[in-house]
Amino acid sequence: MVERKKWSENFSEWFNEVIEEAGILDKRYPVKGMNVWLPYGLKIMKNIEKFIHEEMERTDHQEVLFPALIPETEFQKEAEHIAGFEGEVFWVTHAGHEPLDVRLVLRPTSETAMYSMFALWIRSHADLPFKVYQIVNVYRYETKHTRPLIRVREISRFFEAHTAHADFEDAERQIKEDLEIFDNLMKKLAIAYVISKRPEWDKFPGAYYSLGAEVVMPDGRTLQIGTMHNYKQNFAKAYNILYEKEDGTHDYVHQTTFGMSERLLAAVIAIHGDDRGMVLPPTIAPIQVVIVPIPKKGSEEEVYSYAREIEEELKLAGIRVHLDLRDKRPGWKFYDWELKGVPVRIEVGPRDAAEKTVVLARRDKLEKITVSREELVDKVRELFDDIMQYLYERAKEWLESHIKRVDTIEEAKELFNDRRGIVEIPWCGEEECGLKMEEELEAKMLGIPYPEESARVEGKKCPVCGREAKFIARFARTY
Amino acid sequence: MVERKKWSENFSEWFNEVIEEAGILDKRYPVKGMNVWLPYGLKIMKNIEKFIHEEMERTDHQEVLFPALIPETEFQKEAEHIAGFEGEVFWVTHAGHEPLDVRLVLRPTSETAMYSMFALWIRSHADLPFKVYQIVNVYRYETKHTRPLIRVREISRFFEAHTAHADFEDAERQIKEDLEIFDNLMKKLAIAYVISKRPEWDKFPGAYYSLGAEVVMPDGRTLQIGTMHNYKQNFAKAYNILYEKEDGTHDYVHQTTFGMSERLLAAVIAIHGDDRGMVLPPTIAPIQVVIVPIPKKGSEEEVYSYAREIEEELKLAGIRVHLDLRDKRPGWKFYDWELKGVPVRIEVGPRDAAEKTVVLARRDKLEKITVSREELVDKVRELFDDIMQYLYERAKEWLESHIKRVDTIEEAKELFNDRRGIVEIPWCGEEECGLKMEEELEAKMLGIPYPEESARVEGKKCPVCGREAKFIARFARTY
Repeated sequence: MVERKKWSENFSEWFNEVIEEAGILDKRYPVKGMNVWLPYGLKIMKNIEKFIHEEMERTDHQEVLFPALIPETEFQKEAEHIAGFEGEVFWVTHAGHEPLDVRLVLRPTSETAMYSMFALWIRSHADLPFKVYQIVNVYRYETKHTRPLIRVREISRFFEAHTAHADFEDAERQIKEDLEIFDNLMKKLAIAYVISKRPEWDKFPGAYYSLGAEVVMPDGRTLQIGTMHNYKQNFAKAYNILYEKEDGTHDYVHQTTFGMSERLLAAVIAIHGDDRGMVLPPTIAPIQVVIVPIPKKGSEEEVYSYAREIEEELKLAGIRVHLDLRDKRPGWKFYDWELKGVPVRIEVGPRDAAEKTVVLARRDKLEKITVSREELVDKVRELFDDIMQYLYERAKEWLESHIKRVDTIEEAKELFNDRRGIVEIPWCGEEECGLKMEEELEAKMLGIPYPEESARVEGKKCPVCGREAKFIARFARTY
Repeated sequence: MVERKKWSENFSEWFNEVIEEAGILDKRYPVKGMNVWLPYGLKIMKNIEKFIHEEMERTDHQEVLFPALIPETEFQKEAEHIAGFEGEVFWVTHAGHEPLDVRLVLRPTSETAMYSMFALWIRSHADLPFKVYQIVNVYRYETKHTRPLIRVREISRFFEAHTAHADFEDAERQIKEDLEIFDNLMKKLAIAYVISKRPEWDKFPGAYYSLGAEVVMPDGRTLQIGTMHNYKQNFAKAYNILYEKEDGTHDYVHQTTFGMSERLLAAVIAIHGDDRGMVLPPTIAPIQVVIVPIPKKGSEEEVYSYAREIEEELKLAGIRVHLDLRDKRPGWKFYDWELKGVPVRIEVGPRDAAEKTVVLARRDKLEKITVSREELVDKVRELFDDIMQYLYERAKEWLESHIKRVDTIEEAKELFNDRRGIVEIPWCGEEECGLKMEEELEAKMLGIPYPEESARVEGKKCPVCGREAKFIARFARTY
C-alpha cells in the first residue's frame, strides 16, 4: 500500500531525509547553500540532462561554454538587469594578494557574459535565428532560507538557452518551441505543470515578458521549474547586437532565453515520492531494475546463477540493471532500493530458479507480479510504460486537484490555510490590485494562465477594486 | 603533400589561428585568460571526456560534483598546499553589497574542498579504496602570458580524480592504475608522451611525490598534459581523514590524485596538425566523414541523391557523417573541412554517381583513394584504423626524435637553441645541481624518467659538480 502521510504532512523533513539517505546530495559542505553532489544524485541529474541535450540537438541549438566570471563593466550595461541582480551576486575582488582593477561577478545567469560576444558573432540576417545553450554552475546570494536543489547559492546544473532573432514574431516562435521542448521533457519525467505569464512586477530583470512553469509540491507550495523570457530588443540595445537586413539596413536583434536547473530533480523527487522514499521514472533511473537474490540454505548456487542469467539478459536488452550481491538481508536491500526509487525490483528465490519464473515488484504501486522467464524482457518493458503512465496520471491528478478557482479573497485564504496549491482569482489587471491580493493572501501572483486567451474571463469582478475582471490570476505560496 | 612549415616554425601563430578559425574557442571574451568555448571545440572536448568517463567507470571511480567555492578556513589547513596556491587564487570577498564573514576561494583544484567531506564519508577499511572524480571549472590567477587551452585563468574542463587508501602500497597501485588509464586515453588520442617523476622543488604543493606526463609541441617546448600525485598521509593529517582498521585501531588514509584538462585538446591540435589546420583522430572527431557533393550542370539530382544515399548508409553504420549542402564552391568546402580536421572527406561527382564509386580523401596524409560503393563502410572503417596508426606513429617518431641524451651543459644548450625538445642529462641527484642546470639552460627539469629504475645511470658524471651521476634528468623549455 502506497502511503504518503509524512510525504504530505511533513514534506520538508521528508525531502531532506530522502536527499541525504538516498545519496543525492550532502548538505554538510561548509558553505551555506552549497552542496556536494553524490554519485547517485549526479547520475539521475545527468540522465535528465541527456534528454535536454537531445531536445537541444533536435531544435538546432548549439552547445557553448562561457566563463563563469563577468567583468563589472559588462554586468552593468542593462539597467533593469543590474538593478534586479546586483543585490544577490558574489563579487571576486582580489587575485593572489592584489585587488583586481575591474571586479568580477560570479555569473548569476549569463546574459551579461554572452551578449558582448553575440554582438561580435551576429552580423547579418543569415546568422539568424541564432540559438545556443549551456549547462553550468551559477551563483546567487540567496538571503532566504536555503534548501538543497530548490534554493541554493550555487546552482550546479543551470541550463540556459539564449537565442537571437530577426523580429518579434520569430522570437515568439522561439518561445513556442521552448514550450514544446519543455513539454517533451516533462513527459520524460512524468511531470504535470502549469504555465503562467508573470505579472509585470515579477518579470525577469530586463525582460519584456516572462513565462514560468510551476508544479505543486506535496505541501501545496509551488516550485518554479522552468522559465521562458522574451527580451524584445532590451539587451540587444544595451549590448549593441545589430544585424544587417536583406535590404542593407541594420536593426537590433530580438532575444529570448529559456532556463531550467536541478529544480527539475527536486520536482521529480517530490512529485513522485512516497513515505518509503523516491520513485524514479524508468526514463531517468540510473538503475531501472535491481535484482535481489533470496537464496535459501543449499540453493545458493542455483539462485545466484539464475540471477546472473537474468541480469545478463536484461543488460543485453539495453536495460540498466544491477544485481545486488551485498552481504545484507533481502529485507534491508528492499528498503534501500525503495528509498532510492529503483522502478522495478526482481526477487529471485529457489522456487523461481526451479520453475523459471521471475517476481517483478514495481516501486510506484508497490505491487508484485510473477512472470515466466521467457516473457521477462517484454514484461519489464511493459512495466516501464505502465509506471510512466501511472506516475504521470497521479502527478496530473495531484496538480489538477490543487488548482481551485474562487471569486473572493476569503475563499482563497481558506484554500491557502488548507495548503491547496494554486488559487485562481478574477483580476482587473491593475498592479495595485494584484499586489494587494498578494499581501492579503501572503502569497505570490504566479501570473495569468498562458496562453493569454485562456486567462480571459467575463462577468467576474476583481475582488479588490470591484471593477470588471479582465483575467484569471494565479496565486500560490511558492518555494 | 603534407606541409608543416608554419606549424613548426611559427607554432604560436599557427595555434592561435587554428583555434580561432576552426571554431574551437573565442579569445575575445573581456577577461584576460578566460575564453568562450565554441560548439565545435566543445564537441571535440566532450568526445575526449567520453573516454575519460568510460575509463573511470571501468576502474570503479564514482563521479561527484563539489562546489566551486572553498571557505578560506578550509583552504588553509595544509601548509604546503596553501603556500603553493595562495599567490594565484581568486578571492570572493563580497556578496550583494556586504563583505563576507569568511572569504571564499574560487577552487584552483579541489583538495581543500573535498577532504573535509572525505573525513565524514570514510569510516572504516570497508570504505577503502575510495575513488571519486569530477570534471569542473577551476581558477588560477596566472601571471605569465596566457594562451588558450594551455595557460588560462579559467580551466573550463579540469578533470581531477581523488582516491583514499588503507596504506602506501595500495596508493601506489592506484598510481599504476592512473598510468594505465592515461595510456589507454592517449591511445584513443594517438598521442605519444613521456612520464617523469618531478624533482622535489617542483612537486605539487602538499604531495609526497608527483608524476607528470609530457608531450613535445611543434616548437620543441613541452606541454604537461597529465599529473599523478601520491600525497601519502599529508592531507589526511591536515583534514583528519581517519579510518578504522580490521584490528580496531585507527590510521590516516593514504591519498592520491590524478589530473588532466583541456590541455589534452591542445595536445591533439598541436601534435597532429599541419599547415592546413587540425587533423582529428577519428575516435574524437565530431564529424568523422564529410560528404562534399560536386555536381555539374544537369547532374545535380543524381549527385545529391547519391550523396544522400551514402550519408544514410554511413549513418546506419554508426559513423558520424555530415553532408555539406552549403551554397559554396567545393574548393572552399575542402579548405574549411581540412582546417577543421575532419578525418575523411568523400567527394561525390556525376561520374561517381554513375559508376557507383566513392572518392575517399584522408586528412592526415592528404591522399585519395577510389572505392566501390559496396565496400564503402568497410573501407571507411579501415581508413579510420589506418589514420589512427599513422597519427600515432608520426607522433611517436616526433617525440622520440625530440628526446636527446647528452653529457654536458654545452651540448644541452645547443639542442635547446635548436628547439630539440627534451634533453636528458646525467645528474647527481642534488637539488643544488639541478637548479644550477635549470638556470644555465634556461629550462625546467621535468624530473627523472619514470619508473625510477629506468632513470638510473652508471659511469656518468653530473656536469655541474663532477660527482658520480645517479640519474638521468630530463630538461625542457615548457609551456
